[in-house]
Amino acid sequence: MRILGIDPALRVTGYGAIERRGRGVALIEAGIVAPATGAALERRLAELHKGICALLAQTRPDVVVIEELYTTYKNPMTAILMGHARGVMCLASAQAGVPVQTLGHAHVKRALVGSGSATKDQVNAMVTRLLNLRVAPKPNDVSDALAIALAYLNMSEHVLAH
Amino acid sequence: MRILGIDPALRVTGYGAIERRGRGVALIEAGIVAPATGAALERRLAELHKGICALLAQTRPDVVVIEELYTTYKNPMTAILMGHARGVMCLASAQAGVPVQTLGHAHVKRALVGSGSATKDQVNAMVTRLLNLRVAPKPNDVSDALAIALAYLNMSEHVLAH
Repeated sequence: MRILGIDPALRVTGYGAIERRGRGVALIEAGIVAPATGAALERRLAELHKGICALLAQTRPDVVVIEELYTTYKNPMTAILMGHARGVMCLASAQAGVPVQTLGHAHVKRALVGSGSATKDQVNAMVTRLLNLRVAPKPNDVSDALAIALAYLNMSEHVLAH
Repeated sequence: MRILGIDPALRVTGYGAIERRGRGVALIEAGIVAPATGAALERRLAELHKGICALLAQTRPDVVVIEELYTTYKNPMTAILMGHARGVMCLASAQAGVPVQTLGHAHVKRALVGSGSATKDQVNAMVTRLLNLRVAPKPNDVSDALAIALAYLNMSEHVLAH
């Protein structure tokens, strides 16, 4: 099973595709999609949609896992704008025929580190170790996206094993 | 100038296209886009996107005016989900090369009735009168979408006149 994890945002969206290989996990591809800032919202959403469509065609995942948005932004309009971006990502997945799964931040941390209140450094270290990387993925958006994919892999195999 | 007004929602999205004709305003087309409920969010967004794309191709507006979302829902997740839907509408507009404008609820009421706290009935009556209709448009989503388009027409002509 190939999993594409996405840490959704309007500015810098991290992504990471992974795949189970024997007893290890292989990193297929990871990076960011970052539409030019300054343009009108609809133009930025169009650029984001194009980027995610290209990513789906390139990585051909079996499932896309897009992190759930917080409802706790100081400015509620931020959450709504993030919703615009996440909606466009869900659409791209549907158009590519790939099912979308949602994981909350705390679930990702719990699945990877064992605690919903794990620090960013702990999550980072676990992503680096599980993917057998020499250095932690940068920027944080990429590490977060890989954490989402790894958490989903962990949870789905845990479910399958029982 | 042809204006397409949209009252965005995940379930029932109202739309209304209008055009200035001499001293009056002509109704071009109005209705709703309502994706089947029960399907996964990404499938509903795909249906919504398809509907809005078809609508843009059919009505060929010069501008799309999509009402701003509230930030005052009891459940903040509702606003985020509405953001998913609105994002897909903005995307469809960008893909059709049509600029998107945003109007808040109170601005629409003020432009049409003269008060930001006007009732739904007052807005409804003004829409019916301005478009010279025999009965008020139903459901309310359609009347709201036409109100958005009429408010934008009013505001842009007011600006042009000064």
